[in-house]
Amino acid sequence: MATRREWPHVSVAGYDSDGLALGLAKERGVLTHLCADAREAAAGADLVVISTPVRSISGLVQECMAAEPSPRLITDLGSTKTQVLRELDSQSRSSFIGGHPMCGGETAGVRYARPNLFDGATYFLCPPEELPDELFEFMHSFVSCLGARPITIEPETHDRIMALISHVPHVLANVMMSEVGSFEHRGRRALYCTGPSFRELTRVAGANPTMWREIFLENREALVESLRTVATNIHMFCDDLEREDELGVAGAIAKAAAYRQELLHKGDLEPAALYQITVRIPDEPGLLSRVMTALGDANINIEDLTLHHYSRKVGGDLVLYVTGEGTAATAGAVLETMGFPTVSVPAEQAVDR
Amino acid sequence: MATRREWPHVSVAGYDSDGLALGLAKERGVLTHLCADAREAAAGADLVVISTPVRSISGLVQECMAAEPSPRLITDLGSTKTQVLRELDSQSRSSFIGGHPMCGGETAGVRYARPNLFDGATYFLCPPEELPDELFEFMHSFVSCLGARPITIEPETHDRIMALISHVPHVLANVMMSEVGSFEHRGRRALYCTGPSFRELTRVAGANPTMWREIFLENREALVESLRTVATNIHMFCDDLEREDELGVAGAIAKAAAYRQELLHKGDLEPAALYQITVRIPDEPGLLSRVMTALGDANINIEDLTLHHYSRKVGGDLVLYVTGEGTAATAGAVLETMGFPTVSVPAEQAVDR
Repeated sequence: MATRREWPHVSVAGYDSDGLALGLAKERGVLTHLCADAREAAAGADLVVISTPVRSISGLVQECMAAEPSPRLITDLGSTKTQVLRELDSQSRSSFIGGHPMCGGETAGVRYARPNLFDGATYFLCPPEELPDELFEFMHSFVSCLGARPITIEPETHDRIMALISHVPHVLANVMMSEVGSFEHRGRRALYCTGPSFRELTRVAGANPTMWREIFLENREALVESLRTVATNIHMFCDDLEREDELGVAGAIAKAAAYRQELLHKGDLEPAALYQITVRIPDEPGLLSRVMTALGDANINIEDLTLHHYSRKVGGDLVLYVTGEGTAATAGAVLETMGFPTVSVPAEQAVDR
Repeated sequence: MATRREWPHVSVAGYDSDGLALGLAKERGVLTHLCADAREAAAGADLVVISTPVRSISGLVQECMAAEPSPRLITDLGSTKTQVLRELDSQSRSSFIGGHPMCGGETAGVRYARPNLFDGATYFLCPPEELPDELFEFMHSFVSCLGARPITIEPETHDRIMALISHVPHVLANVMMSEVGSFEHRGRRALYCTGPSFRELTRVAGANPTMWREIFLENREALVESLRTVATNIHMFCDDLEREDELGVAGAIAKAAAYRQELLHKGDLEPAALYQITVRIPDEPGLLSRVMTALGDANINIEDLTLHHYSRKVGGDLVLYVTGEGTAATAGAVLETMGFPTVSVPAEQAVDR
C-alpha cells in the first residue's frame, strides 16, 4: 500500500499460499496482479519482498532467483538476519539485502494493512558484501520513500540486539501470561484479579505462534544468552530482597530510572539541521555496505544518500545526509578512520551538483 | 475529588508532610481544610484514608487512633496488606480496614488528581475479624459510590497475587530497562534501537523509587517466590530452545495464547442481570468479614450490600447484589456451605423491605 501510494503506476504482483488473503489483497488494491506462485511473481521484478516465517525465507530467495527473467533485488522482512544470510549462496547474496522494519500491530494480515505503517519506523538493512552499490542505494531510497528510517547494521549485531529488545520481551509476556493464568491461592485465581496494565503487558502473549516459534528457534543462541542473563539478574534482585538490602533494592530501581530517562530524552537531543557529507570512495565490491554498516554501528542514521559514479579507476562520490552537527562530525570521524576524507556542510548551504 | 463529587457538603480535612502538595490540594478543591498533622486531620473523622509508602502505614494508624475524638474508621491505599494488618493491635484492628484500589497512572501527585480515577477499578478490601459489621458495610458502600468495584480478599492471598500480577512486572521492567540500557555489541547500543513497544513495556521502570522500594521489601517473601518461579520458567524455555524442541517451544506459546484468550473473554462472559441474595446471619463478631472474604475468594464481585440488623439474638439479614445468574448460584452455594441458607431472586423481581 505504501508502495502504491508513492508510485501509483507501478505494478505490484503478489503470491500467497492463502488464496483468500491473496484475493483480499487484490480487492483492497494492495496488489495489481495475482500470481500462481512466488517464482511467477518474482519474474522480472525490480524488487521482491518476502514476508514469510523466517525459516522459509532462504528457500524462497532461491526460488525467486530462479525466475526468468531473474529479479533485480530481493529483500525480506524477517525478524532475524544472520541465519538467512548464511544460508544464501554467493550469487543470491549479490541480489539480496536483508530487511527488518520495526513496526507492526496487534492485528495481522492484509485485512489490517495500512499505507502509513512505516511512518518514522526504524528499518534495519543488512547488505551482504556481494551486493552492488547501486542496489544498496536503490533499497535505501525505497525504504526512505515508504516513510521509514533506514539503518544499516551488521547481521549478528542485529540479531543480538533484537533478542534482547524484542524476543526476550515476547518470552517474558508468554511466561507471565502462563504463570498468572495458572496461579491460584485459596481458590482465588490471579487471572481474575488483573487489570488493564497486566493486559497491556501481555498484549503480545501467544501472538502469531508459527512466526514466533520460528523466530525463537532461529535466533536461539542470542535469545538463550539474553534470557539466561535476565534470569540471573532476577535472582540477584531476589538475593537483595532476601538480605533486606535496602541500598541494593534502591540501586536497582535507580539504575532503571537513569536508563529510562536516557531513553525518553534521546529523541529530544536530536537537533534539527540537516548536514550533507561528501566522501570519495573507490569502486570496490562490498565497500559501500561496509561504509554504511560502520556508520550504522556508530548509531548514525543516514537520512538520504546518493552515489555519483565516475569510473572504475577514480571511484565515485558518496553524498550522505544526516541530522545534526554532532552526528555529521561523528560520521566524518568514522569515515576518516576508514581512510576516506570527507567534506561536511549544512544541507541548505550545499551546492547541488 | 471523587468524595467531594459524591458528597459536595462533606468536609475533607488533610495533612501531607509536603506543604506545597497540601497547598495545591486546597487550591484544587481536593481538601476543604488543611491540618498541621495527621492526628489533627483524623480527629472525629468518619473515615481516615492513609496514602503513604507501605512501611509508614501502621505507625500512622496508631497516630490517628490517638486523635480526640478518635476516628470512626481508618483505611489505607497500600499495595501490600499482610504486614500492615499484622502490626496493628486488636483495638486498632476494630477501626481499620485494609484497602487497595487497582488504579493509578504514570503521573503522581495531587497535580494529576482526577475524580474519575476509580471508575470501574477493582478495589480490594481486607477487613480484620475485629471490624464491626456496620463499618464494613460503610466502607463497601463508600468504595462503590466512588465508582470502584469492591472485592473482599484475605490479606495473604492479596499479597501473593499482587506479587505476581503487579510487583513481578515492575521488577521485570526494571531488569529489562537496565539490561537494555547497558547492552552494546560492536559499539552499537541496544537502547538506541528500541521502538515504541519497548518504551511501553518499560513504562513503569524506575518509577516512584521510595514507594516501590518499600513495596518490594514489604512483600519480599511472596515476591521472591514469584520471581524465582519466573526465572525457573525462563530457564526451562531456554532448555527447550537449546534442544531445538519445536514442540516444547510451540507448547509454551500455545499455553500463553490460551490464557490470553481466557483473559480477553472473561469480560464478555459476564451476563448483565442483577441478582439479589438474602441470607440470615447471626450477630457474631467478625462473621461478616469472613462471609465477604469467602465470597471474594470464590471470585464473586458484590455490587452492593445492605445489613438489616434485628437483634443480638436473632442476628440479621444480609442483602447482597451480584451480577449474573451463575454468580448468584455460586454465591448461594458458598453461603450454604458456611451453614447459611439463602434466597436468590432477580433484582427486578425483588420486593424492597
